[in-house]
Amino acid sequence: MGLILAIDIGGTQIRAALYSYESIQPIQHQRISTQGTGNTVYERLISLIDSVWVDEIEIISVAVAGPSNPEMGVILSSPNIPGWLNFPLGEKLTGRYHVPAHISNDANLAALGEWKYGAGQGHHDLLYFTMSTGIGGGVISRDQLLLGHKGLAAELGHVTVLPDGPLCSCGQRGHLEAIASGPSIASYALERLNAGEPSVMKPGPHLSARDVAQAARKGDQIAIQAFERAGYYLGRALADFLHIFNPSIVIFGGGVSQSSELVFEPMKTSLKEHIMDPGYLDDLIITTARLGDDAGLLGALAYARIELSAQKD
Amino acid sequence: MGLILAIDIGGTQIRAALYSYESIQPIQHQRISTQGTGNTVYERLISLIDSVWVDEIEIISVAVAGPSNPEMGVILSSPNIPGWLNFPLGEKLTGRYHVPAHISNDANLAALGEWKYGAGQGHHDLLYFTMSTGIGGGVISRDQLLLGHKGLAAELGHVTVLPDGPLCSCGQRGHLEAIASGPSIASYALERLNAGEPSVMKPGPHLSARDVAQAARKGDQIAIQAFERAGYYLGRALADFLHIFNPSIVIFGGGVSQSSELVFEPMKTSLKEHIMDPGYLDDLIITTARLGDDAGLLGALAYARIELSAQKD
Repeated sequence: MGLILAIDIGGTQIRAALYSYESIQPIQHQRISTQGTGNTVYERLISLIDSVWVDEIEIISVAVAGPSNPEMGVILSSPNIPGWLNFPLGEKLTGRYHVPAHISNDANLAALGEWKYGAGQGHHDLLYFTMSTGIGGGVISRDQLLLGHKGLAAELGHVTVLPDGPLCSCGQRGHLEAIASGPSIASYALERLNAGEPSVMKPGPHLSARDVAQAARKGDQIAIQAFERAGYYLGRALADFLHIFNPSIVIFGGGVSQSSELVFEPMKTSLKEHIMDPGYLDDLIITTARLGDDAGLLGALAYARIELSAQKD
Repeated sequence: MGLILAIDIGGTQIRAALYSYESIQPIQHQRISTQGTGNTVYERLISLIDSVWVDEIEIISVAVAGPSNPEMGVILSSPNIPGWLNFPLGEKLTGRYHVPAHISNDANLAALGEWKYGAGQGHHDLLYFTMSTGIGGGVISRDQLLLGHKGLAAELGHVTVLPDGPLCSCGQRGHLEAIASGPSIASYALERLNAGEPSVMKPGPHLSARDVAQAARKGDQIAIQAFERAGYYLGRALADFLHIFNPSIVIFGGGVSQSSELVFEPMKTSLKEHIMDPGYLDDLIITTARLGDDAGLLGALAYARIELSAQKD
């Protein structure tokens, strides 16, 4: 049985891990920073892969931020790598290494990773949210990853929760991401600070959700309300998502979920208020991700194993 | 090969159709009105089934309005039959006829029917909306019907499009159903008539979406705007649904879709305005249902055939 090379291309670093067919402990693990001078991200990726390459590798599976078409192996765009527009990474890697190379959205793969090896094990219907700079999503429905026609599905951060609300990174207004992502929580707090409201926080462009969380833990009212507002709209969106998907578990990952005590209570209150039937909440598990930074790599591993076993059927 | 008995329990009539394993032309087709004096809906259903029963029937598949748990064969509640609360119809039919009996939501089955035999043939990722008294939904994702953990998924009419907006049949506010269903279109028009605005329509509790459609075709501004408003919010919700599911086809059935020329144009304009990436709209087909009143029966047939072939695998 061959080996699997899983790769996670993040905003700050690219990680590569080599797995056997059975274990989730990598045989080898290397990383490189994503940006550097003198060469492109693709060249850096190649040098990383070359450094771990062995001939027993049977498949490459890549997790990358941004919309990707897994069937075509094309990255449509990536927030971390501005030059990658309709970038045929799958074809390029297959051409160079002569093995199949699969490219998928990192949030989708993180959902798959949590389902196979993390907090979602044993569930058949799962929602996963990663809440940090943006809000990404992943859905497992009857043991199948939701990808959509072109791999663009499960953009759970890009649903309207406040019509004509704050501007979203995608250009639309009032999306969940524009209200409950880290930068959105910080900018809501900043707006109120700039209006002169009293707070322990110091206004300035570098105010982060982490700063707001620290202030909230000290009892700062603006900070607490910034998280309550995010939690309120998250609960509202979650009610809609439960009506749409009826999952048995909802998993939150990413930086904002590390402030779960600030977000989860207002979220749960809002969820109960907005759900149309209590049947959606019976036995529903709401929890945090278990795989941490490894979710993308382990999701890429899970994807590769599913592909390999489908080929062998 | 045995026969399949498909049943569609509607608000006004119950239909039963007997199919062979291959064709979509029924061998037999009977109907009975849902409500009558002197016996219960269940008793009427049984008498209908008895009238078509033959020993070659291998499976019963039932479409019914309202949330149902297909794995348990339990109807959680049905808008048409107030007495059916957690009603174990599957168990009762299996006990009486000694064959498996599957119970599913009629909108989910209509989606399955349109996918297998109607407007959605050949697609792998499909959204189906039925727009009449309420708004029901069905989703096919990678050739699989979206049911969720307890069969409560795909309630596409019950997502918030206008926070704190009009009251929905489910008790929540501002759901798509509360704005774009037939009665919601009529009650929006009625509100403006009651405020004294000039119109060819006569205000009154019996004003229907059909009346509004007729007035709109005569150029009545309130009537036109009632459909434009429904189309606007439908387009807004559809943008979210495309971000969530990335389907290749969206199919509209039900009475309101018969006024498609009044709803579709404002819906498409709004959809284009609210989509975050044109990739979701490339090659997307938006069309009307093809199976008409037979969608529930043919969906029940499709469900039974999938069940039978899964058993034989």
